[in-house]
Amino acid sequence: MTDGRYLAIDWGTTNRRIYLMDPTGQALETERDGRGVLTLSADDYPMEIDRLRARFGAIPIVAAGMVGSTRGWRDTPYVAAPAGIEALARAAMRMPAAGMAIVPGVSIVAPGRADVMRGEEVQVLGAVRAGLAPSDARFCQPGTHNKWIRVEDSRIVDFSTAMTGELFALLRDHSVLAEMMRGPVTDGPAFRDGVEAGRGGGLLTALFGVRAGVLLGRLDRDDAAAFASGLLIGADVAAQLAQGDVIHVLSGGTLRALYAGAIALLGGHAVAVDAEAAFLAGIHLVKELLDA
Amino acid sequence: MTDGRYLAIDWGTTNRRIYLMDPTGQALETERDGRGVLTLSADDYPMEIDRLRARFGAIPIVAAGMVGSTRGWRDTPYVAAPAGIEALARAAMRMPAAGMAIVPGVSIVAPGRADVMRGEEVQVLGAVRAGLAPSDARFCQPGTHNKWIRVEDSRIVDFSTAMTGELFALLRDHSVLAEMMRGPVTDGPAFRDGVEAGRGGGLLTALFGVRAGVLLGRLDRDDAAAFASGLLIGADVAAQLAQGDVIHVLSGGTLRALYAGAIALLGGHAVAVDAEAAFLAGIHLVKELLDA
Repeated sequence: MTDGRYLAIDWGTTNRRIYLMDPTGQALETERDGRGVLTLSADDYPMEIDRLRARFGAIPIVAAGMVGSTRGWRDTPYVAAPAGIEALARAAMRMPAAGMAIVPGVSIVAPGRADVMRGEEVQVLGAVRAGLAPSDARFCQPGTHNKWIRVEDSRIVDFSTAMTGELFALLRDHSVLAEMMRGPVTDGPAFRDGVEAGRGGGLLTALFGVRAGVLLGRLDRDDAAAFASGLLIGADVAAQLAQGDVIHVLSGGTLRALYAGAIALLGGHAVAVDAEAAFLAGIHLVKELLDA
Repeated sequence: MTDGRYLAIDWGTTNRRIYLMDPTGQALETERDGRGVLTLSADDYPMEIDRLRARFGAIPIVAAGMVGSTRGWRDTPYVAAPAGIEALARAAMRMPAAGMAIVPGVSIVAPGRADVMRGEEVQVLGAVRAGLAPSDARFCQPGTHNKWIRVEDSRIVDFSTAMTGELFALLRDHSVLAEMMRGPVTDGPAFRDGVEAGRGGGLLTALFGVRAGVLLGRLDRDDAAAFASGLLIGADVAAQLAQGDVIHVLSGGTLRALYAGAIALLGGHAVAVDAEAAFLAGIHLVKELLDA
């Protein structure tokens, strides 16, 4: 029945990406839909799997991301950092009846702080093992929650998560600044002014300054969203970056450009890494280890 | 018709407080309702004033707060800091047909930042002139937007606004932390842990740590709201406070206790000032200056 093909699924909070993989780790087909874990209850998963089988045949499935969380299908305990790809494969949740395995996330507990990830670990370790980034490297993965990850000797040794993207969305959609944040967000002068203003801390007051700046005619209304984005991303990057640091940015589109711009402005060097290629490399390594 | 009585109105964004004042500045009656400027259009104000007249007679009205903003009845331009109570009275918007005057807000433009207030200036300058606080003093006024105000020689010389309260509400009502933030917020151990964690900066990552802490069993779910409040208030206070600073806190109830706790924990001294008494003292001074 199977010819070495399998399904790799990046099953996140709001989106799901499905890849039909050949035995060498190449994607033969790619689909993206909105059936993230927030749209599904635990009882929905068997039917979801049945649907995939009906379309792609009875081939193995390897999934990563929030599908392994308490909000997903099957709670797959975190692997404590430091963690390499072998540790992820060893701790994968095997579900033989479904012909599926779920890759665990990674946790870290350090003095005074704790953090978790689910899904990003496959990208980062995939990037390293596929040669898309060095085996000692730092990464950021902008999104709703931006992950800053340090890899040493091909293992995730430290990371922290910033609520940057979510906070921007909350301010744009629900705050007193909302009506001012209708303009575009690009890596232009307003964004860069924001980065400079955000690097110094005092984020809580700097954000209100967006409103005051518009009211007093010092900030163009069309620039307010870009400036606010710059404040948040500037604060985020400044808290992590030292002069000359090289940061591998795993993200596409607008966010990659914004983070690359902020990193450069604050004295670092941004290197773009293809997030999808990184995920496929990582998930294929897990698949090979599961089969070994 | 008039016997020296007048109406003082603290007309804010969501609430309105109406005081029937005697000629010496004592409040004879007090009412609070929800008819803030967000519930009214510019056309509604004449009828609102008619209603007040029908109840209290044809006595003068002095109003402060958002009623003088672009969202209120009549845009009353800001007075630039430094500003004392005389400057506020001079720049008041007199509306003879309505028998009313609107007290202006205060603005500040400094290198790299701008800020505005409407309503808080009456409280702060009233507190100083009534002897509730020294003529050289620092204030904070917690609320949706917390104002930090420096007064020298009975004039507002500098201030900045922090979105602390609004950000807490956004996180509690709309964020990925929302379902964890159902517990009480008091000045207890969880709040104080939050203050300690928030003082060091890195707010964007510390906030995500609330979620990770609960998921990893290091933070009790019932404590998450208090801890998150501590993070925000700790970051807010730490950005403003130096060791030994005396801060006059103009606010009532829970927020005053939280800010007083955070200020003490971070090495300052909090002095409580009755916000209503301060407002009445300030608005009565304006009334006397308008009549002079």
